[in-house]
Amino acid sequence: TINEERLFRMLSKSSETGTIPGNGLSRLALSDQDQEMRNIYKEWCEEAGLMLRIDDLGNMYARRAGKNNLPPVVVGSHLDTQPAGGRFDGILGVLLALEVVQTLNDNGIETERPLEIVNFTNEEGARFEPPMLGSGGIAGVFDQAYVYSRKDADGFSFLEELERIGYKGEAGNRLGDFHSFLELHIEQGPILEDEDKQIGVVEGVQGINWLEVTLKGEADHAGPTPMHLRKDALMAAAEIMNQLEKNIATTDITVTVGKISVSPNSVNCVPGEAHFTVDIRSANDKLRKEAFEETKKTIRRVSEDREVGVEMTELWETEKIDFDSNITEVIENSATELGYSSKRILSGAGHDAKYVNNLGPTAMIFVPSVNGKSHVPSELTLDRDIVSGANTLYHTVLTLSKE
Amino acid sequence: TINEERLFRMLSKSSETGTIPGNGLSRLALSDQDQEMRNIYKEWCEEAGLMLRIDDLGNMYARRAGKNNLPPVVVGSHLDTQPAGGRFDGILGVLLALEVVQTLNDNGIETERPLEIVNFTNEEGARFEPPMLGSGGIAGVFDQAYVYSRKDADGFSFLEELERIGYKGEAGNRLGDFHSFLELHIEQGPILEDEDKQIGVVEGVQGINWLEVTLKGEADHAGPTPMHLRKDALMAAAEIMNQLEKNIATTDITVTVGKISVSPNSVNCVPGEAHFTVDIRSANDKLRKEAFEETKKTIRRVSEDREVGVEMTELWETEKIDFDSNITEVIENSATELGYSSKRILSGAGHDAKYVNNLGPTAMIFVPSVNGKSHVPSELTLDRDIVSGANTLYHTVLTLSKE
Ligand SMILES: NC(=O)NCCC(=O)O
Ligand SMILES: NC(=O)NCCC(=O)O
Repeated sequence: TINEERLFRMLSKSSETGTIPGNGLSRLALSDQDQEMRNIYKEWCEEAGLMLRIDDLGNMYARRAGKNNLPPVVVGSHLDTQPAGGRFDGILGVLLALEVVQTLNDNGIETERPLEIVNFTNEEGARFEPPMLGSGGIAGVFDQAYVYSRKDADGFSFLEELERIGYKGEAGNRLGDFHSFLELHIEQGPILEDEDKQIGVVEGVQGINWLEVTLKGEADHAGPTPMHLRKDALMAAAEIMNQLEKNIATTDITVTVGKISVSPNSVNCVPGEAHFTVDIRSANDKLRKEAFEETKKTIRRVSEDREVGVEMTELWETEKIDFDSNITEVIENSATELGYSSKRILSGAGHDAKYVNNLGPTAMIFVPSVNGKSHVPSELTLDRDIVSGANTLYHTVLTLSKE
Repeated sequence: TINEERLFRMLSKSSETGTIPGNGLSRLALSDQDQEMRNIYKEWCEEAGLMLRIDDLGNMYARRAGKNNLPPVVVGSHLDTQPAGGRFDGILGVLLALEVVQTLNDNGIETERPLEIVNFTNEEGARFEPPMLGSGGIAGVFDQAYVYSRKDADGFSFLEELERIGYKGEAGNRLGDFHSFLELHIEQGPILEDEDKQIGVVEGVQGINWLEVTLKGEADHAGPTPMHLRKDALMAAAEIMNQLEKNIATTDITVTVGKISVSPNSVNCVPGEAHFTVDIRSANDKLRKEAFEETKKTIRRVSEDREVGVEMTELWETEKIDFDSNITEVIENSATELGYSSKRILSGAGHDAKYVNNLGPTAMIFVPSVNGKSHVPSELTLDRDIVSGANTLYHTVLTLSKE
């Protein structure tokens, strides 16, 4: 089993970079905080005797040689966070992978296959939209030019920031052929906790659509402009949000408006423009696609009724995927052998593993999230669940590296 | 009559400070742009032979002596603008007052009473809420400590910024006893244009409430969090906005949500907090007060239904007021004598004259707004309407200064 003391020391140290009130982290991709965390992580990898390489998208790979020069077992996740995120989302998966390597070192174990651990760039999509640009980039979902050109809210591009923090490597360093890919992650939902299970054996990831909407009405003075003469972009957005919640969201489909802004944004100005995003998810691709079409129809109908112009940009779409059944079985057996309760589960969030799945056999391990919370400073996974996750990951890696 | 060429030169020059695309101005109170405009205006006042003094709130008074040391006729408005405002709102009233003085100079006229022209600080309320801090300050509506402590969105206080731009004067310089106060302003609404009238004789100003609302739900991940477990602050805000528009806004009551923001403001985060403002107006104080109570009830009801916390701050309230009937008569007669069509009208917007009215006889002159637009870069008043306004103001001042 893994070394708990070392693991928690590492986790606690990683919480010192980008700390915000409420025990949270703000470590947006390619920011100064991300750079600082990458530097620390790089040192740790070198201390563990790993060979580090960085690809053209800033993904970091740390390799441990095996007995044979076979395709490696790869384990990883991401070190970036939401603007006001927690200490576990992504980070846990990277640091537990490193702990697995250190445990192998402690025990003098030479695995049959090489081992690689990965930190993917911009998983969150909070700074550069859409999410998973690093893993999607190497999986052929996004081409290099697209990834490089993505801009943050202040107009800085992915490429500029990647170069600025000094983490632009070579395209030749991208992930090569691999035997299997594993990602351990917090669940970010309430199911494992509700059902009192220690390990989630993740069978797949639900589908996602992201839509960016701009409504163009007319700015006016809030005082002398009668209601019937207004083209209020925010009132139109409010009607749309209400409709989406009432008619589109069901128990099988989630609808989230996560970002909104208006212009001129002054108390006594009728908003002339409103910008917002829509995130639609379902485990059922057919339902999701219907909901997405229905959403665009609702937006168009309300805009027409109110004589407000509308622009829609489809920011992101991913289909529902199924992970490799051999790997999920190995994960399930590892948990059982270690005496941990487990449950097969579908991921509600996107993950790097989702795109890596395009390239080869992939699966994920979930550990419980207290109150199902994530993307908030109060995000928490209990120490004992972290230990179960680490041991399950360790045993899964050991088994896979023998295949 | 006034000197059109000089007037339009002055207006055009004043549009060069804080220019934004679309022919608009961004000259927020106590900003660098406001400072630059004040400096230019100060020079113009000195060139016109006026004695300048500045009070503790940054209000600028420029005095022209009269034959007798009687209480002066005072004319003024404001030089600050909305974040994306036009070239006329406020500015026109200050510059036409200066043109009146210059016309008196040209004609070598010494008025019986002294004349004062005023530029009030922070009329818009766009940078420091609420509006009309300068005029409200001298009228006893807001005390000095309150005005000084108002903060902009970046946390800078009124006092800091007033000192920084070098326009903090003495409390002893505040507006003293006066014979009459006149403010010329653009209508900012569609009535004069619709009815093809050149001059609005403003009989009063409607009442206003400003409310600031914070809804505190729970931030969550947009993916794995089922709809029924969410406490989405933005969906609550959307329902509230919809209700306000449907149930509170009528032809006699306007309701505007001009500002909104959410946190964490990330595409894949359920908004944990939503902040927005509500502006409610009516010519009928009873209706307005009922609408305001109803608004607070709606906000509380929706928040309770959705188990979302709520904080409300009443930012501003002004009652409906009536201007001085003697002055409105003088304005109406001046317009008629000059051959201009006129109409008695109620102001939908707040104005410095509204608070000065607490101190002594006050009234306003409106000139038409093309399409009723204001608080937007495309705000426009036609040259011929500006000239009618200037001449009406000139004749009104001449008449009042003889009283
Ligand atoms: N795990 C995670 O939060 N990923 C971000 C992508 C998403 O929105 O699901
Ligand atoms: N005239 C004007 O736009 N004043 C600002 C105060 C208000 O909101 O009415």
